Amino acid sequence: MTTAQKNDILRAMAVGVREQRDSILAANAKDVAAAEEKGLSKPMVDRLRLDPKSLEGIAAAIEQVAELPDPVGEVLGKWTRPNGLAMQKVRVPIGVIGIIYESRPNVTSDAAILCFKTGNATILRGGSEAIHSNTALAAALQAGGEKAGLPQDSIQLIPFTDRESVDHLAKMDRYLDLIIPRGGKGLIERVVQAARMPVIKHYDGVCHVYVHHTASHEMAANLILNGKCQKPSACNAVETVLVDREGAEDFYATLREVLRPSGVEVRGDAGVLAVWPGAKPATEEDWSTEYLDQILSIKTVSGTDEAIQHINTYGSHHTDVIVSEDATVAARFQHEVDSAVVLWNASTRFNDGGEFGFGAEIGISTDKLHARGPMGLAELCSYKYLVNGNGQVRL
Amino acid sequence: MTTAQKNDILRAMAVGVREQRDSILAANAKDVAAAEEKGLSKPMVDRLRLDPKSLEGIAAAIEQVAELPDPVGEVLGKWTRPNGLAMQKVRVPIGVIGIIYESRPNVTSDAAILCFKTGNATILRGGSEAIHSNTALAAALQAGGEKAGLPQDSIQLIPFTDRESVDHLAKMDRYLDLIIPRGGKGLIERVVQAARMPVIKHYDGVCHVYVHHTASHEMAANLILNGKCQKPSACNAVETVLVDREGAEDFYATLREVLRPSGVEVRGDAGVLAVWPGAKPATEEDWSTEYLDQILSIKTVSGTDEAIQHINTYGSHHTDVIVSEDATVAARFQHEVDSAVVLWNASTRFNDGGEFGFGAEIGISTDKLHARGPMGLAELCSYKYLVNGNGQVRL
Repeated sequence: MTTAQKNDILRAMAVGVREQRDSILAANAKDVAAAEEKGLSKPMVDRLRLDPKSLEGIAAAIEQVAELPDPVGEVLGKWTRPNGLAMQKVRVPIGVIGIIYESRPNVTSDAAILCFKTGNATILRGGSEAIHSNTALAAALQAGGEKAGLPQDSIQLIPFTDRESVDHLAKMDRYLDLIIPRGGKGLIERVVQAARMPVIKHYDGVCHVYVHHTASHEMAANLILNGKCQKPSACNAVETVLVDREGAEDFYATLREVLRPSGVEVRGDAGVLAVWPGAKPATEEDWSTEYLDQILSIKTVSGTDEAIQHINTYGSHHTDVIVSEDATVAARFQHEVDSAVVLWNASTRFNDGGEFGFGAEIGISTDKLHARGPMGLAELCSYKYLVNGNGQVRL
Repeated sequence: MTTAQKNDILRAMAVGVREQRDSILAANAKDVAAAEEKGLSKPMVDRLRLDPKSLEGIAAAIEQVAELPDPVGEVLGKWTRPNGLAMQKVRVPIGVIGIIYESRPNVTSDAAILCFKTGNATILRGGSEAIHSNTALAAALQAGGEKAGLPQDSIQLIPFTDRESVDHLAKMDRYLDLIIPRGGKGLIERVVQAARMPVIKHYDGVCHVYVHHTASHEMAANLILNGKCQKPSACNAVETVLVDREGAEDFYATLREVLRPSGVEVRGDAGVLAVWPGAKPATEEDWSTEYLDQILSIKTVSGTDEAIQHINTYGSHHTDVIVSEDATVAARFQHEVDSAVVLWNASTRFNDGGEFGFGAEIGISTDKLHARGPMGLAELCSYKYLVNGNGQVRL
């Protein structure tokens, strides 16, 4: 399909979602009622709920994806060999992508749209809590898209929500080129365990801010506040702060003032506890915990070596920050910290496809193969080599 | 490590191999004797055998890798965001790579060297037939490398050769970032089944030459001869030829003449059998068989549509060729055939890291994620993002 064809279909899908608004909301109401009856927590129920506004958001997001540049067909490399062979490396779709996800019904649309934009077919397998919403949304995408030429079955929602269906799908490497699980650690573990095809996943985000002794205390405190409090439930929120012993006491005084209004719970080592009334002692477990909450662990370190070692040992290779006025130290930290995104004097919260300028994001990979960090449209593609000759044979 | 440090260590490893020549050859003699005693086939024993010349080849190959450009640190992208954040995407090592392989002892050196050049640690697990050779080679690399500063344990050979050790290794995703199996289909299947980390593999090479009705008959026949006979045991050898019905009878006459001296066995459809004395009838199974031998299956097709459909159905997405004088048809074929390397008027045998100009090759991937086709040094790397700011927070 040409880019124009795909974009026409995307816009028709947005129309489909708008046209089927009432049936999608009715289906969603069933899921919400069932969730409340089952006694699911309020945040869980909220994540499930759609309303006219969030549904319009889904439709608008589809239109935005239609506006994004198409990575398929991009020439990634071009060279000529001494024997005259003209080589080209071009971006192509991956093929068939399985998306296994939980609760949020908007993933049905987000994932299908991004895969479609990149020329991939999608097999969606959502969770039982959202099955009515997912089914209605997938039907709306399909019905809308078909009017503009969407091939039938290029977006498929599997009607099974039992756990065995995950294992089953994960073994179908003859049909699926890639599986992307989106959800809690239990789901991801299950997929990784069973999968015979490549999996791109997002495990924990145990993210750090390291405050070097040359750091501006005000900047460091503000970056920690933003990293911890702007969205504590995000994977790129700060969980642990490491502070150079030199100047630590002064810095803790500043940080306490900056964090005070937010009510963040602090868990610290002895150095922190000595100067921070109300702080709790941090345990060994704290250093590798993703709180996803208004909790922050703080450790005093002897210097950059210990900070790097701590991050590479306890972190999750996701997002780490150094705050420093020393460019050499910052460059060393960025080089030696083995994480997808390593920032100097900026908030952890910038590890995000939108903030990177990717336009869309299917997730943030904690893997090192194929896609690392924010995963946009280009990362939903593979490549192939085209070689043009005039009869060359190998000697 | 700097590139210069790594290259010094590589050259010291080559010296190590030369210095320990006698002990490596003595160890190899044990393996060869055991293989002969066990009654292994002659080709199997030959693959196992080292001699002074092949060992010098191993040492020389190490020195060649030292001369290759270092992909680590290469800046793959660079841009600035509206908020002033300076973004960089840079190539970095993957981490720890497990190599699981069979028989050929030279893989011990090849794999360890390429991984080391790209800053990766290697865990080698070779087969039982070559255990003495592998142990001696790994010791020589380590002893030589250490003199120039190779960290201990950055190249490790596992002393277990039982099958359970493969499963065990494949579950250690806490320690290994990637596994590359090199060997027969049984081994690869076993690794894929057990692995919890990414696997880059090479399954079959069922490669095609499609002869379009506009093709030069002479060129097409020569490309088939080269693809089939230059090295029949190679994964990029031709297994099936597809020929447009228009002009097929003429073409078969040419092809028969060109192939005659080679003694290739031909298995054909009815159109072939009618004009090719001595050809055997092809069965359904032939279309998906990797012969790795002087056998060729030939099918007459109605045109480009059928050829593309046949290749995408029966092929292994490895290497396919169109021979045609029509550039539009060739471009369509290259676009629609879903294979790692699609050539126009050139031999399948060019799907090779060396022929691509990559300088070295750890294998040819039939996967679509991370690495597809010839896998050189760049494909043994991951990337990370470095983001530089001056206090930016997310709003």
